[in-house]
Amino acid sequence: MAPAQELPPETEAVQLGDAAEKSRVTVVGSGNWGSVAAKLIASNTLRLPSFHDEVRMWVFEEILPSGEKLTDVINSTNENVKYLPGIKLGNNVVADPDLENAVKDANMLVFVTPHQFVEGICKRLVGKVKERVEAISLIKGMEVKMEGPCMISSLISEQLGINCCVLMGANIANEIAVEKFSEATVGYRENREIAEKWVKLFSTPYFMVSPVQDVEGVELCGTLKNVVAIAAGFVDGLEMGNNTKAAIMRIGLREMKAFSKLLFPSVKDTTFFESCGVADLITTCLGGRNRKVAEAFAKNGGKRSFDELEAEMLQGQKLQGVSTARELYEVLSHRGWLELFPLFATVHEISSGRLLPSAIVEYSEHKPNFSVVQGSAQYY
Amino acid sequence: MAPAQELPPETEAVQLGDAAEKSRVTVVGSGNWGSVAAKLIASNTLRLPSFHDEVRMWVFEEILPSGEKLTDVINSTNENVKYLPGIKLGNNVVADPDLENAVKDANMLVFVTPHQFVEGICKRLVGKVKERVEAISLIKGMEVKMEGPCMISSLISEQLGINCCVLMGANIANEIAVEKFSEATVGYRENREIAEKWVKLFSTPYFMVSPVQDVEGVELCGTLKNVVAIAAGFVDGLEMGNNTKAAIMRIGLREMKAFSKLLFPSVKDTTFFESCGVADLITTCLGGRNRKVAEAFAKNGGKRSFDELEAEMLQGQKLQGVSTARELYEVLSHRGWLELFPLFATVHEISSGRLLPSAIVEYSEHKPNFSVVQGSAQYY
Repeated sequence: MAPAQELPPETEAVQLGDAAEKSRVTVVGSGNWGSVAAKLIASNTLRLPSFHDEVRMWVFEEILPSGEKLTDVINSTNENVKYLPGIKLGNNVVADPDLENAVKDANMLVFVTPHQFVEGICKRLVGKVKERVEAISLIKGMEVKMEGPCMISSLISEQLGINCCVLMGANIANEIAVEKFSEATVGYRENREIAEKWVKLFSTPYFMVSPVQDVEGVELCGTLKNVVAIAAGFVDGLEMGNNTKAAIMRIGLREMKAFSKLLFPSVKDTTFFESCGVADLITTCLGGRNRKVAEAFAKNGGKRSFDELEAEMLQGQKLQGVSTARELYEVLSHRGWLELFPLFATVHEISSGRLLPSAIVEYSEHKPNFSVVQGSAQYY
Repeated sequence: MAPAQELPPETEAVQLGDAAEKSRVTVVGSGNWGSVAAKLIASNTLRLPSFHDEVRMWVFEEILPSGEKLTDVINSTNENVKYLPGIKLGNNVVADPDLENAVKDANMLVFVTPHQFVEGICKRLVGKVKERVEAISLIKGMEVKMEGPCMISSLISEQLGINCCVLMGANIANEIAVEKFSEATVGYRENREIAEKWVKLFSTPYFMVSPVQDVEGVELCGTLKNVVAIAAGFVDGLEMGNNTKAAIMRIGLREMKAFSKLLFPSVKDTTFFESCGVADLITTCLGGRNRKVAEAFAKNGGKRSFDELEAEMLQGQKLQGVSTARELYEVLSHRGWLELFPLFATVHEISSGRLLPSAIVEYSEHKPNFSVVQGSAQYY
């Protein structure tokens, strides 16, 4: 494991923006990943002169079984005892239960809440954030609606009228919390300087972050990979071996790329070589709950539904892959693209009970022919 | 698992070359992968009118413990009882112990021997093959010499004065033998029609083959992946988790791509999304002996040498990854590229005992800066 080597001190040349005004960072969210993000950031704000030391973390207040407030315990122990027990966040992390108060002085907002809460949070924040505040979303798993995916970065951007980058990658929060080596990708729209600032804020010797000018590509990877993980789980459940699993993952990666590029012609091929692409796909298809429940589904020959297996295996959590596959299927049907995405389509047809799990490798005749989509031969 | 569906009959339009002359195929080699290749091909020559039914397979003659000749047993039982027991090759496969006789009528030669025998075989074949014969190499693991890699397709091409394609991919022979779904990539130089003919000869409903105009890229993947598998094995041995393993595999894929493109500017990014690239890398890093022995090496903290572990774990087989890493290191030192390829370099430094296994994730400070290599910023 990488020792926590010191990073070099910041030089004047890399101090971006107004040197007179140090940036203040607020993390909006305090779950497992949010707490790890706060820890990463807090180690850097102490070290880098262009940031205020203090990192404010908005915490949805909870009363713990002990009767104490979660924020009080975080502030007194420096640990998020509920969502990241045993890990010190850094004593410059300040938990704040008041959303408006938490964001009011921030120049940089890190969104890392469950995706279903983002819209509500943004509505509360309209008019409450600083002018020219910059945002980044660490939230994976936007919905894919008929008219296209509902990007969380766009939602934040549009609701608050601010710029929003994304950070995605092969990031299992608990592994990063114990400083195991990992990587991530920052997707940005235009402003490379802002992207570099986010990279600086998150990078540590065990967490390597690279910027990519492709918000949509980076963000779509974080959602579409869950559908491929369902397919990989079927292969595991059918005990088809590593060859087949690798082939299915590769076909999945190809469909992720092709789908993203059809929706957003600005999406770049190279994005899929980044941590958010191939690496996150590998992590998700090796571990992860989508893979695990899909494996059980295939082992049972599709006779027990995903709902039943989820209830049994996940203690009330829901699989994103299954609902994303259904949403994707609707988009593909609606646009006449089903034949172009045989793996995506087959995952939904299996998970909805229309096909047997073994169908995951039976679409070989339907090799997609992208020439039917105007100008898209390059996508394949 | 994919049922052995019938492929559609060949149409006139796809019959390439001189329709009057059916192609005759000879497989040069009869090990595990060679026997599976013969089986795949034999199922197609029966089905496709542009090929003679018979597939000749050159077998290095051996006397079995029963006292029988291997070729006789293959021809009487239709099984390679030594290297692929239990699998029928098709009764149109004819084992031939006479190399010159086996190739003399062939229009298409499939090379699938251990790589150290290729040069000797080619020397024996000079002047013995038909004019305008086409070749394909299924041989992974060429040597990487100081002056550059010694491509096996080039060796065949130059020695025999013929064109040579390659077929690579996530291909565990025993899994394909039992018709589990898999993919492969055909790399070709210029003649797309020939590539399509090879694709037709190998494709089955459970074995999907795609052509790519990039011989070097496809062939280099087959060798360089073994170095990445050593790195993945270190991560497994250190129990660093899926996040770290995915990151290391991704960095490895990036170095495979960058190295290939520095050596051969014609190499294409997209090749690394093919079966020969990302899929073969995944298979090799999940299973495979390079990964396995490297895992044992790291578990022992590097205190027992690879030679010792190989002898104990592999019954006399040698790991290609370790020698390829050493050869690569020499090329990188010689060209001043060591800093551009921290993962490749670190694998050799660990396997040769100069660094501890944990160093595999400690090169994060040396993020490669391709701008130092002229015009190569695009490679990164």
